[in-house]
Amino acid sequence: MVKFSQAGLDASFTALSDHTRRGVLEQLGHSDASITDLAEKFQMTLAGMMKHVGVLEQAGLVTTEKVGRVRTCKLGASRLEQETAWLEKHRQLWDARFDELDKVVEELKRKEKLDERDTRE
Amino acid sequence: MVKFSQAGLDASFTALSDHTRRGVLEQLGHSDASITDLAEKFQMTLAGMMKHVGVLEQAGLVTTEKVGRVRTCKLGASRLEQETAWLEKHRQLWDARFDELDKVVEELKRKEKLDERDTRE
Repeated sequence: MVKFSQAGLDASFTALSDHTRRGVLEQLGHSDASITDLAEKFQMTLAGMMKHVGVLEQAGLVTTEKVGRVRTCKLGASRLEQETAWLEKHRQLWDARFDELDKVVEELKRKEKLDERDTRE
Repeated sequence: MVKFSQAGLDASFTALSDHTRRGVLEQLGHSDASITDLAEKFQMTLAGMMKHVGVLEQAGLVTTEKVGRVRTCKLGASRLEQETAWLEKHRQLWDARFDELDKVVEELKRKEKLDERDTRE
C-alpha cells in the first residue's frame, strides 16, 4: 500500500493545477529544454517561467541544471505514483459509495412496489 | 482518447492540492455530511469549511443541498477520469523519456568500450 505524504501530494497537485505547468511537463516528456526555450514556447517572460519551473522543481517533477549561463530543465524523479494511487483510491470509494446508494434506491423501489400491492389487495 | 478540459483540470488539481479538501473527499466517500459535521471533524470554522467545500463544488467533486438550515455535502459527479488519464499519459511519456536516455547511456558505454579496445590494440 502506498503511504501518502500529505505535503508531497499538496506540492504535486499544486504544481499540476496550472495549464502552463502541465504544458511544460508534456514538453519535457519529449525533450529537455532551457528556461529560455520554455519561456518562448509558452509566450511568457523569463521571470514568469522561472517561477513555474520553481513550483515544478519543488514537487520533484522537474530538475534543473545550470551550465554556464543556460539553465536546462528535465523531468524529475517523481513518477506521480502516489498521486495516481490517491486518485485510484478515491475512485474506488466513489464507486462503492454510488453502488451503496443504488442499493438503497433499489430497496426503496422494491418496498414501494410491495406497498402498492398491499394497497391493492 | 480523453479530451482534456484545461479549465476542468485546473479546478480539480487545485481542489486536490489541499490536505483538508482531500480529507473531506475521503470522508464523503464513506458517508454524506453536513458542513457543521465537517467543520467539527477537521477542527475548523464553519466559514473556513464552507470555503473548502466551495472549491470542491466548483470542481464537480462535491455537491451540496440545503434543507432547512442544514447544508448536506455529498460526492459530486466527477470521477476524476480526465485527471487520472492525464497522470497516466504523463507517466507513459516519463517512462518513454527515461528508456530513451537509458539507450543513449548504453550507446555511450558501448562506444567507450570500443574506444578502449582500439587504444589497446
